[in-house]
Amino acid sequence: MPEPIDFFFDFSSPYGYLAAARIEEVLGGRGREIVWRPYMLGAAMKLSGSRPLVQVPLMRDYVAHDFARSARRYRIPFQLPEPFPIAALAPTRAFYWLHDRDPGSAKAFAQAAFAAYFAAGRNVAEPEVVREIVHDLGLDAEAVVGAIASGAVKQRVKEETDRAIKRGVFGSPFVIVDGEPFWGNDRLEQASKWLETGGW
Amino acid sequence: MPEPIDFFFDFSSPYGYLAAARIEEVLGGRGREIVWRPYMLGAAMKLSGSRPLVQVPLMRDYVAHDFARSARRYRIPFQLPEPFPIAALAPTRAFYWLHDRDPGSAKAFAQAAFAAYFAAGRNVAEPEVVREIVHDLGLDAEAVVGAIASGAVKQRVKEETDRAIKRGVFGSPFVIVDGEPFWGNDRLEQASKWLETGGW
Repeated sequence: MPEPIDFFFDFSSPYGYLAAARIEEVLGGRGREIVWRPYMLGAAMKLSGSRPLVQVPLMRDYVAHDFARSARRYRIPFQLPEPFPIAALAPTRAFYWLHDRDPGSAKAFAQAAFAAYFAAGRNVAEPEVVREIVHDLGLDAEAVVGAIASGAVKQRVKEETDRAIKRGVFGSPFVIVDGEPFWGNDRLEQASKWLETGGW
Repeated sequence: MPEPIDFFFDFSSPYGYLAAARIEEVLGGRGREIVWRPYMLGAAMKLSGSRPLVQVPLMRDYVAHDFARSARRYRIPFQLPEPFPIAALAPTRAFYWLHDRDPGSAKAFAQAAFAAYFAAGRNVAEPEVVREIVHDLGLDAEAVVGAIASGAVKQRVKEETDRAIKRGVFGSPFVIVDGEPFWGNDRLEQASKWLETGGW
């Protein structure tokens, strides 16, 4: 069995959203499982002493412009939501609870949560919004809302985040292919080339 | 006359080096002048409160790895020099002095200075190294060394840096095409697409 591809992202990351909309097309279909691994980017930023780009003077206008320009380029619906950024604990917890029962449902949920936030402007940090998204997917919304508040799922997200950071992950999106790290939505094509050629 | 393309960079920037090696091929040949505009990235970083990526915990290993991987991808010789980064005042001053006499010579100097630092590991922050590079290009090395120490050229670099920052430039490389900003070596292809299509 070839090694899976690890796809790390934060639900509050616009470039993570764009990558989530593209990754199965760009990296899929090669007999490699793509494992989606949301984590709390804020924890990595605390360690690296970084801030979200939209909070950095000089950069904020550019990055807001680039989010929208990149989305148009891929024809992915996008509007910068308000509030932004958010601490996306609720959807991250919901994701892992779903994932442990059915990874496919978790991916469907992740895509729906990203679209709810970045296309429809709904605040997915709110458990009630997560509940609606899960409900609309025909999944067990009440169980997910319970999971969001559970200590076990909280701990799971903490562990996943720690593990990501230990593997050198510090941004969103961040892909690891055969031990080779690629940071950024615009590196998906490089990761694809790496898969195709075995590296350079 | 179509508007020129502005190409901003810092001589201490590995991605600036890669872009300098590629930009005339990727964006040239369309009847647009490409104006090379080295500036002091450190001044922009001070304003934005940023640090060089190699000084950011968690990121430093990745970026050092990515510099080399990106260079291999484009088949451009590269080794991370020591010391790195540097305050590249000397080559930036030399560049503008040459530029005001002959922009073509200034571009040739810029490419030679980048290669001296990132391929041959020579510390181009030292005026003596700049002198040798200028000499090897058959240009007036003594005049350039004099210019590096002159108040007028010092002031010129300060003004160019201020002007770049006023135009929203905060990184290296940074390209502006018809008012549209593109940050990063891996955005040169997007800038090319923008030129070709008029934008999206």
